[in-house]
Amino acid sequence: MSELRGACIIGQSGGPTAVINASAQGVIQTALKQGCITQVLGAAHGIKGVLEDKLYDMSKEDPAELDIMKYTPSSALGSCRYKLADPDKDDTDYKRILEIFKKHNVRYFFYNGGNDSMDTCNKISKYMQKVGYECRVMGVPKTIDNDLNGTDHCPGFASAAKYIATSCAEVWQDAHVYDTGMITVVEIMGRHAGWLAGSAALASLTGCGPDLIYLPEVDFDMEQFLTDVKAIYEKTGKCMVAVSEGIHYADGRFVSEAETSATDGFGHAQLGGLAALLANAVKNATGAKVRGIELSLLQRCGSHVGSKTDIEEAWLAGSAAVEAAVSGVTDKMVAFKCSREGGYKCETVLEPLDIVANFEKKVPREWINAAGNGIEKPFIDYVLPLIQGEADGPKENSLPRFAKLKKIIAE
Amino acid sequence: MSELRGACIIGQSGGPTAVINASAQGVIQTALKQGCITQVLGAAHGIKGVLEDKLYDMSKEDPAELDIMKYTPSSALGSCRYKLADPDKDDTDYKRILEIFKKHNVRYFFYNGGNDSMDTCNKISKYMQKVGYECRVMGVPKTIDNDLNGTDHCPGFASAAKYIATSCAEVWQDAHVYDTGMITVVEIMGRHAGWLAGSAALASLTGCGPDLIYLPEVDFDMEQFLTDVKAIYEKTGKCMVAVSEGIHYADGRFVSEAETSATDGFGHAQLGGLAALLANAVKNATGAKVRGIELSLLQRCGSHVGSKTDIEEAWLAGSAAVEAAVSGVTDKMVAFKCSREGGYKCETVLEPLDIVANFEKKVPREWINAAGNGIEKPFIDYVLPLIQGEADGPKENSLPRFAKLKKIIAE
Repeated sequence: MSELRGACIIGQSGGPTAVINASAQGVIQTALKQGCITQVLGAAHGIKGVLEDKLYDMSKEDPAELDIMKYTPSSALGSCRYKLADPDKDDTDYKRILEIFKKHNVRYFFYNGGNDSMDTCNKISKYMQKVGYECRVMGVPKTIDNDLNGTDHCPGFASAAKYIATSCAEVWQDAHVYDTGMITVVEIMGRHAGWLAGSAALASLTGCGPDLIYLPEVDFDMEQFLTDVKAIYEKTGKCMVAVSEGIHYADGRFVSEAETSATDGFGHAQLGGLAALLANAVKNATGAKVRGIELSLLQRCGSHVGSKTDIEEAWLAGSAAVEAAVSGVTDKMVAFKCSREGGYKCETVLEPLDIVANFEKKVPREWINAAGNGIEKPFIDYVLPLIQGEADGPKENSLPRFAKLKKIIAE
Repeated sequence: MSELRGACIIGQSGGPTAVINASAQGVIQTALKQGCITQVLGAAHGIKGVLEDKLYDMSKEDPAELDIMKYTPSSALGSCRYKLADPDKDDTDYKRILEIFKKHNVRYFFYNGGNDSMDTCNKISKYMQKVGYECRVMGVPKTIDNDLNGTDHCPGFASAAKYIATSCAEVWQDAHVYDTGMITVVEIMGRHAGWLAGSAALASLTGCGPDLIYLPEVDFDMEQFLTDVKAIYEKTGKCMVAVSEGIHYADGRFVSEAETSATDGFGHAQLGGLAALLANAVKNATGAKVRGIELSLLQRCGSHVGSKTDIEEAWLAGSAAVEAAVSGVTDKMVAFKCSREGGYKCETVLEPLDIVANFEKKVPREWINAAGNGIEKPFIDYVLPLIQGEADGPKENSLPRFAKLKKIIAE
């Protein structure tokens, strides 16, 4: 393999996670050590930073600050939700990217994100091949939704899962404090896949888990839901429900959207989310005291309760992408291949970008119970190893000490 | 002082906190060592457990489980919101309490709670004095609201404050990830006092704090609020707001309640809370992308990010109550006297129950900025020492390991 000399770009894209910066750190720290990589550039707000020629010189950063990126949630370089056009229809962006690549002699492009970002990666890679510009393009996975194809799991998922399980266990304790009735509905992210909502079941390992869990993999039935809740409430005086934001009726309509228009046809703005909506339905059906709790942004940036395993694997994914690219690989995403028998083991493998992009991996139906309102043991066995170990990030004043990057524009 | 021999009761009352069990643990462990205390009884669901003669024998608990009560959120013995009648009008409950006290020879009564619980304590103490039944009654403070009179601060407040500051800092990171506009409204507990909402300002020490903070100590003006938000949003493209659930208009109406009826006069159930309501108002006023986040129950049971200082002080308050009672004191609440100059120091003192009960301590107006939308340094100097140190509770499967009590009914 001939050595390819040139600069590299690392960009971050899509929604934040607790550990996406660990992956960026893995790319940056590994790239800075490569003789053939002449400059390590961080793209401001992902591909938008490339288009705008807003690239940071990562060698100018304090190594100690780079070191604590892995404990800093959200995307330190800035993120974007920018979708590249089909290059056969409109190649404006691609021409601009090529121009910037040539200007900085960029020969390595690392893109850190979820489904859409792998699509971006794939399109850029194919375009560069078509125009004959040698550039090695690698995807570094990231998504709390855990819905990327071709990998055992995605960096970012486990820390969010751990936040969710911990929070559900604590809320359970709170919701059981009185000897009076109480129903709690916890709304969890995941528009199309139920990996995060299902992870609420981990709280049961503490003795304090939800009674019912609803994922988007199973069509939602409001009557059945109310029947399920009532049965448990009447028996125990309590009920805790975990529900994915993406639950939908059999006809595909999201419950959150369908019920909004059904409930209020007077043009009033919808104020609450799904948790509030279901809490309201349950209150009307049972008369019980009900509390709707939306974990909202808290669950995807909760680095203070991050998983050490997740942090380390996220770093590894970034580092492995650089090592593979330097050794000649292109057009791949770093993926995890794991075994759980005889102790958890995880190694990186490489998957073609085009089998990864634009496919959403769902929770297998057989990992959900027959009634569609709970989780089976294989799901727990799958997730549990991923949340192990505590994030031991630095603190100042007993509050998180986040990485402070100088972000010096590259010459 | 003559030795008073007999049983003691510890009861927990009011809303849960991350550390109320640390106080109960302090009472139980200290009481179990006292020769004059013949039996340590835990009341199931506070004073209700006394009235129902549902009392647990705490000596039957595994000492290792008692040891980890301090890392277990919510009230391990169960709580209640039961208000005793005025004994001059209806002494039924008091007669029953006296009956139970006599039955078990209860000579020490420790009650762990907030304003209402100190009122309960006070009434029981006065009644026992009136009927000539010797019983030493001590209040052990607890409230995330931090609104108890006669004490520097209340156990439970600091852990909630730390949860809030940590979460706000993380949400700030998340909300600043794109280069597009974003306004975030975080709703924080505190119906009448702004101690918790003000604690969001601690997040600024991480570089990631709210731009605006609204407490119930200052009358809320919706127009001014929208003007404040718009000014920051137009300048920076972002705005993060922390708001107390208890903000109210000059006429005293809570914003949450006043706006509910104003917005929807068609009898539709109100689905969201204050965060959603304000987010909606901001969205209408600015057109920006807005996210309302309610910290809900999460903030009062977030023991995984508890303050070690808070845990230790909570334990100390319980322990000091027992030591004082055994030495002859009655009719007092354990309070904290603290100095912050030359390093934080905290010692327990004793305050008369009747100056503590039924008075809500507010944030001093001069600790809030003149515009009524931010916090001044004295507030930070007050809170910061309280959140120091990390809760290092036991884990199983990298999830919290809560105390498991056997709760064996006393003979």
